[in-house]
Amino acid sequence: MDALATSLNLSRNGVQEAHALVKPYIHRTPVITSSTLDKLASSQQSAETLATTEWAGKQPAKPTIRLFFKCENLQKVGAFKVRGAFHALERLRADPEIAATLAQNGVVTHSSGNHAQALALAARTHGIPAHIMMPNISTPSKIAGTKGYGANVVFSGSTAAEREAIAREVIERTGAIFVPPSDHPTSKSNICTLYILIIAVILGQGTLALELQEQALELNNGTPLDAIIAPCGGGGMLSGIALACEGTGIRVFGSEPSFQGGDDARRGLIVGERITTVNTLTIADGLRTPVGKYTWRIISDPKKVVGVYAVTEDQIKAAMRLVLERMKMVVEPSACVPLAVALFNEEFRDMIEREAGPAGWNIGVVFSGGNTTVEEIRKLFSA
Amino acid sequence: MDALATSLNLSRNGVQEAHALVKPYIHRTPVITSSTLDKLASSQQSAETLATTEWAGKQPAKPTIRLFFKCENLQKVGAFKVRGAFHALERLRADPEIAATLAQNGVVTHSSGNHAQALALAARTHGIPAHIMMPNISTPSKIAGTKGYGANVVFSGSTAAEREAIAREVIERTGAIFVPPSDHPTSKSNICTLYILIIAVILGQGTLALELQEQALELNNGTPLDAIIAPCGGGGMLSGIALACEGTGIRVFGSEPSFQGGDDARRGLIVGERITTVNTLTIADGLRTPVGKYTWRIISDPKKVVGVYAVTEDQIKAAMRLVLERMKMVVEPSACVPLAVALFNEEFRDMIEREAGPAGWNIGVVFSGGNTTVEEIRKLFSA
Repeated sequence: MDALATSLNLSRNGVQEAHALVKPYIHRTPVITSSTLDKLASSQQSAETLATTEWAGKQPAKPTIRLFFKCENLQKVGAFKVRGAFHALERLRADPEIAATLAQNGVVTHSSGNHAQALALAARTHGIPAHIMMPNISTPSKIAGTKGYGANVVFSGSTAAEREAIAREVIERTGAIFVPPSDHPTSKSNICTLYILIIAVILGQGTLALELQEQALELNNGTPLDAIIAPCGGGGMLSGIALACEGTGIRVFGSEPSFQGGDDARRGLIVGERITTVNTLTIADGLRTPVGKYTWRIISDPKKVVGVYAVTEDQIKAAMRLVLERMKMVVEPSACVPLAVALFNEEFRDMIEREAGPAGWNIGVVFSGGNTTVEEIRKLFSA
Repeated sequence: MDALATSLNLSRNGVQEAHALVKPYIHRTPVITSSTLDKLASSQQSAETLATTEWAGKQPAKPTIRLFFKCENLQKVGAFKVRGAFHALERLRADPEIAATLAQNGVVTHSSGNHAQALALAARTHGIPAHIMMPNISTPSKIAGTKGYGANVVFSGSTAAEREAIAREVIERTGAIFVPPSDHPTSKSNICTLYILIIAVILGQGTLALELQEQALELNNGTPLDAIIAPCGGGGMLSGIALACEGTGIRVFGSEPSFQGGDDARRGLIVGERITTVNTLTIADGLRTPVGKYTWRIISDPKKVVGVYAVTEDQIKAAMRLVLERMKMVVEPSACVPLAVALFNEEFRDMIEREAGPAGWNIGVVFSGGNTTVEEIRKLFSA
């Protein structure tokens, strides 16, 4: 375990090492562009219709924006989460003693969504048993998906305390190793590997930004990205991306839903302190968790993450509609939050207009996942 | 015009020449694969749940199928139709006299859907006026889309006779040149170029199959496709694909909706005669038209098109759900018809099992377009 601890470092180099390890198991997802979306993002019209800003006495911003969409909705299990899950398992498997425990006792995690399926797939790939705790209110399709990857699904209540109790019980009974979704702010886990695994997950998620940097260069005739904007829930992916961009000159931004205080990172940055409890039922269900303890250290460092912006439910839905109808891509609501910021958040757009000038910015936008259903689409867009 | 007529030939070579002409204007759309869909297509399960066959005394077929999806839903204007539209215009523009007429009087067509936007875009690209007749019951988004490409939209009733009357009126008034959607079975048009343009459109649509052949080879380590299955409405695309596959050994199949007799090509092949009138409100709205006179000559030639298969509305919807939820792609119902055949049509699956044996087939599947809206998705999947 010591070797493992010293080999992981929270840096661009650490992300590159993670990439070498996970590459064989994941898709190099495509990066796509859309002249229609570029046109919308570069006009005043989009912001005008849905902006939450008062226009009195001023014109809406008219930045020049070229978007490069990293399609992690086309990733295995439909989301970026496989990157962290595979990386964590690779790191654990490198230690012979842990590898033996894994093979026998398996891994355990709690998740109602994409991390569950990601860990289940990573575990099955290596013949490792997986115990996944899911809230008993989870949608049947997600439960079926997780079981489909061969995992043992264990139901729990949906509160943190209920989840904790079941987690402890499963770990004690099976001896399985806990692999956290990205950070695990509430649990006082006695598992020595936890901190290391959080780092492994962060570095794993960050690998998408290395690919995005390269792919945007190719698409853009050698001109690099000016910025990347990503969703922020627990903050694992945003932290990993920030590390992957160190020293590249690419500015990293986070994005959150504002509904019922879901923008805890943004609010935490204002008050200078991490907000630890969030209770929101935003449609961006992947972003309902507060930022974790370890990811906060990265996200609250302005040299790593320049800023975090929030959007309303209507703005998220409008972005999702554009992606579905214009780009012909299925993305989940959480994955539309960065695009919603680029299209509708006046503060963000105004900042770009000022900083970029007429040349504009090339912005990498992370489509984090595509796990939704026609029923959910129906519900989201019912009048 | 004579030079034009002799330069167009209904052959693979003709399609290759069309490709050289349209390449600068269109996307080389991606070809994607899906292990999930391959697994489903190669199991008995999918057919069992939705097949319209009686199972008494026999097992459902269990063919081995690997699918290669040609994503024309990601094509400009969201559908393959730009290929034919650009090719027709390129051919017309090559004649100086016609080019002058075009620049002054423009082009005209009737279409409620993808051909309208395709011709509008092609015309705008060359600074040519476009007059598009649309039924006054067209969905607002399609009207807005067509106007968005700068076309002059002219409304007509939705019957053939009403459409004809308006077409004649517009042509007489403007001197614009008529560019047919793919075939134009009812009109006794007096425009000399019509037959030539029908051929130009067929050859243009066929270019997608040239790309699909190459892209599947690359994805499949040099092993060619065994078959391509495409939707069949007026039959322009299916004919073009058949020409593009001549001499390659690739078998070409058509697919249609069976609802209210929408499978006119399939039924026509059985009775040995083209069926000229169809009245169906199938959800596959791009396939409501009967096969045209010229396309029928190709489609009814078993050396060119091996067979045509039909699927039910439920089978189309089930295929569309899989594409949305598993492949994260937005496709319109018409575009799901070929996949529905591969997954659910027992006759087709049984034939593959017999002909391909355990090695199975590599099948190119045409996702012809992605022009749908969240409202349409909502309506389609409302309980």
